Amino acid sequence: MREIHRPNVSDRPGSVNAETAARLVATAHRLADAARAETLRMFRSPDIHPDNKAQKGFDPVTEADRASERAMRDILAEVRPEDAILGEEFGAQPGSSGLTWVLDPIDGTRAFISGAPSWGVLIGVTDADGPIYGLVDQPFTGERFEGGLGISRLTDRQGQRELRSRGGVTLAQATLMTTYPEVGSAEEHAAFRRVADRARLTRYGLDCYAYALVALGQVDLVIEAGLQAYDVVGPIAVVQAAGGVVTDWQGGPAHGGGRMLAAASPELHAEALALLAQA
Amino acid sequence: MREIHRPNVSDRPGSVNAETAARLVATAHRLADAARAETLRMFRSPDIHPDNKAQKGFDPVTEADRASERAMRDILAEVRPEDAILGEEFGAQPGSSGLTWVLDPIDGTRAFISGAPSWGVLIGVTDADGPIYGLVDQPFTGERFEGGLGISRLTDRQGQRELRSRGGVTLAQATLMTTYPEVGSAEEHAAFRRVADRARLTRYGLDCYAYALVALGQVDLVIEAGLQAYDVVGPIAVVQAAGGVVTDWQGGPAHGGGRMLAAASPELHAEALALLAQA
Repeated sequence: MREIHRPNVSDRPGSVNAETAARLVATAHRLADAARAETLRMFRSPDIHPDNKAQKGFDPVTEADRASERAMRDILAEVRPEDAILGEEFGAQPGSSGLTWVLDPIDGTRAFISGAPSWGVLIGVTDADGPIYGLVDQPFTGERFEGGLGISRLTDRQGQRELRSRGGVTLAQATLMTTYPEVGSAEEHAAFRRVADRARLTRYGLDCYAYALVALGQVDLVIEAGLQAYDVVGPIAVVQAAGGVVTDWQGGPAHGGGRMLAAASPELHAEALALLAQA
Repeated sequence: MREIHRPNVSDRPGSVNAETAARLVATAHRLADAARAETLRMFRSPDIHPDNKAQKGFDPVTEADRASERAMRDILAEVRPEDAILGEEFGAQPGSSGLTWVLDPIDGTRAFISGAPSWGVLIGVTDADGPIYGLVDQPFTGERFEGGLGISRLTDRQGQRELRSRGGVTLAQATLMTTYPEVGSAEEHAAFRRVADRARLTRYGLDCYAYALVALGQVDLVIEAGLQAYDVVGPIAVVQAAGGVVTDWQGGPAHGGGRMLAAASPELHAEALALLAQA
């Protein structure tokens, strides 16, 4: 019997006390506000001229990515100088507190440069054991999803409400999402297809917004590969706090990146994992 | 040399005078307002239980689709009883004016039931020669894209601005969108791949919102197959009025449905069409 990695970021005895938790959450919102301003300033602007980070193919990065991460790092330098930072655009910076801010200033830059509202700003906080808090912000729709440190919450134009993933959905009734139809390697694609062929509905292209929809109780499964730590820490905390289960494709922790399975319920997670983990 | 179907819905000598045009546009907005209320009432509701219209596979329809179309038909019965109607859920109703309202109460029902904001309400008006006006409404983001009868306009939370597709983009620099990675038949998929393999970026899953992004100057190409008239009349008018070119895969009119190529410019349309039309 495989042991499934199922921490609940909201419940697990944290390495931080209540006062620190409140400060971390307030700081995360301040970062997200700053990133929202920087990204919205350039979203759909004709002056966006993406650079290509890839040797082969097209992996865009824009001045909006860099400005968004810079704005967040400036705030952390001011209010959390003792914490470490891992960001997509400007790399790792060591700290002394045992906490790391994991930042993706624009997850889904391809969506961003296409004008589609499925990109997001990802902010996560980890301690030695993994994510303790995460936030997924969609600046254009004005939706902020967060989880951990006792919180599981959507803040949008209508106000605030609790996030809760849905249960009672079998794989045959499930909606599955991934960003790229090819998913990853040929082997990863085949594993994904084993699940997709049994799901009711498979949809593509939503980047980090897909994880937010799991937390919102609208989508049941997200399966992706080839991820980086900054792609996953924020979403993992949001999905776990809402009641979902997130692991790699063997049932182990996923916060280092690589392959990820996010499920709305433990039962559905088990059903998908059995198919993904087949030799 | 193939003759390319390139009407400009904004310029072509219409079968309607200015007073009728103003009434049609006002009516279209009234329909869109009614559909917006009906769809938003049920979007992301836990009470959405989709029915399956397909014999094989999953083709969902919800009470939101039916309520949205009913609300629009009720208004037309009151203010435009002489016009014909073609709607996805309640079929064709004849008229005597020579004008037909073409309605898709929720284009992208799969996105709708997944909580993703890429679905839309599609409203088109055709005369004997094809689309004269169209509207794509995204109720959740509050964006309304319209084109034809002298209009090319986005109305959103910030106000109104002109829609203009972008020129000067070659296929090698282009962003291409389609909803389903399989596109259609094996032959249709192969034709799509000929274009996708030469495009800079290919994205999936955005339903009618992809056409709106062409009109907005953010996306360069949308290629789809297996469409119905109610899927295309509204988007065709919006893209054409913004300066784009929309045809089938042979360069002929696309407003009957089937295969569609929407391009941001005549030059890019020609480049993609040459690849799609290869035997």
